[in-house]
Amino acid sequence: MTQPAFAAVDWGTTRLRAWLLGAEGAVVAERRSDEGLLAVERGRFAEVLEGHLAAMGAAPSLPVVICGMAGSRQGWVEAPYVATPARLADIFAAAIAVPGTSRDVRILPGVAQKDHARPDVMRGEETQLAGVVGLRGGDAIVCMPGTHSKWVELKDGAIARFSTWMTGELFSVLAQHSILRHAVGAEPAHVAADDPVFGAWLDDGLANPGDATSRLFRIRAATLLADLRPAAAAAALSGLLIGSEVASAKSQFGMAHARTILVASGPIGGLYAEALKRAGYPATSVDAETTVRRGLLEAARSNFAIDAGDKR
Amino acid sequence: MTQPAFAAVDWGTTRLRAWLLGAEGAVVAERRSDEGLLAVERGRFAEVLEGHLAAMGAAPSLPVVICGMAGSRQGWVEAPYVATPARLADIFAAAIAVPGTSRDVRILPGVAQKDHARPDVMRGEETQLAGVVGLRGGDAIVCMPGTHSKWVELKDGAIARFSTWMTGELFSVLAQHSILRHAVGAEPAHVAADDPVFGAWLDDGLANPGDATSRLFRIRAATLLADLRPAAAAAALSGLLIGSEVASAKSQFGMAHARTILVASGPIGGLYAEALKRAGYPATSVDAETTVRRGLLEAARSNFAIDAGDKR
Repeated sequence: MTQPAFAAVDWGTTRLRAWLLGAEGAVVAERRSDEGLLAVERGRFAEVLEGHLAAMGAAPSLPVVICGMAGSRQGWVEAPYVATPARLADIFAAAIAVPGTSRDVRILPGVAQKDHARPDVMRGEETQLAGVVGLRGGDAIVCMPGTHSKWVELKDGAIARFSTWMTGELFSVLAQHSILRHAVGAEPAHVAADDPVFGAWLDDGLANPGDATSRLFRIRAATLLADLRPAAAAAALSGLLIGSEVASAKSQFGMAHARTILVASGPIGGLYAEALKRAGYPATSVDAETTVRRGLLEAARSNFAIDAGDKR
Repeated sequence: MTQPAFAAVDWGTTRLRAWLLGAEGAVVAERRSDEGLLAVERGRFAEVLEGHLAAMGAAPSLPVVICGMAGSRQGWVEAPYVATPARLADIFAAAIAVPGTSRDVRILPGVAQKDHARPDVMRGEETQLAGVVGLRGGDAIVCMPGTHSKWVELKDGAIARFSTWMTGELFSVLAQHSILRHAVGAEPAHVAADDPVFGAWLDDGLANPGDATSRLFRIRAATLLADLRPAAAAAALSGLLIGSEVASAKSQFGMAHARTILVASGPIGGLYAEALKRAGYPATSVDAETTVRRGLLEAARSNFAIDAGDKR
């Protein structure tokens, strides 16, 4: 059986995922929890981490590498942003060692685009990017959908530029707090990529991204005038927002000749794959969770003396 | 002193405004309340109305005309939508007489655009439109900003087509419920039309309406990277959303040669006047409250035997 070489943690705003990984990245143990940044009181981060490590049977000397919001100002220890253009190797080299812990715990920094006209930030996605292309990876456009979707242009192993769309959060706040809650219902339905309503509104968003805030109200009007049902309204809202994002990203990144990689897990991956296909360029899909583990392996190799022969 | 010829009520989702008006529209008495649709239990509409009429000293025989959400399915008595193209005179002729009341109470219908590709609805704005151009008014594009901004193309006294932007509601739900609440703060600042931050983001929204859902996140990023303060963040959000609306409306309505009229009250009127000016066409501004009263006068004349000589 593989011996763990280090622990890897993806510590986000609402969730924590932890693994014990072998020197080649094999998963030895795994934990998932809702103890994200918002749920952990200041001063309790070490305790929460040690609880998960103990549950996985990690040795006291096992080193830990962490990516995500745990490194934000509101997190455990701030790992200041690395500025674009940011080489993935330089990001990992800027990891912060958490002081006052008995084991070696490193928190990875996020990336900031300090361009006055297009300020932007990421935390966690930089690690996924390393999992997608490796530290010396070539050129690609990477689409990472989610609460705050990121699109990233990678050049020669560096994050050249990136942009964020609030697509997932817009869906959520509109479905819960706007007049569209009457259309979508209290528990928005699961949306399928082959749902023709999703497809029709996706095409609409792709063709008319500048009209998105107007087309939103048509979902409400269609429930009054055309008896649009809640499941269809959820599909319409999803299609419209994803279509608008992809059209806008296409205009910002001009992906015609680039290799495009879609990083997503679960149903959202299917929705974006459909959107990218309809937008006229095929993307290679990779699993987001596998990708973050691979990125954390790259980060561990950059920070600790880990190699295939290491059997701690 | 002018004698009241009828009572006029603008009964919306969150507010009620009532007036006693003379036969020529002079204001004899006035009431404002938060007893909008959402605050009035079913079965209590007559009681609430009579309370306000009594407080203004209205005679028991005085007729009442009502516009707004009181005529929706969730309201007092449903006044079914009139379909576009909708002549203003035909809308008023379709008023519903409330059954079981001792006085003559009429509720005005809303307007529906039953176009499969662009379904839309309005309730209340049709009455303001009559106040803007009269029942025989000519051609105009009318911009009516608010929670759900309406843009309307009027042709020969009829509503030819219209479209809705959720601008005001987007500002509100994003400022209260999204990650932008950290940027904007708990009590979003009043935004001034000559604020340079408002102007810069307005220009951005006008130039790039298709990127709106991406640019939203830049407001958050600018608070982290450029120390954007809450008042400036509110100005940025307002500018971005209004700019996106006006650019989108311009592409839908192509207003180059039309007479454009802006119907608004209070600070929002100044923000939209600035947006219309920067979008390249000047608009005549009229006060929204005066306009709804004028429209209700037109509606009363269509429904009751009211003329200048009537001194009931």
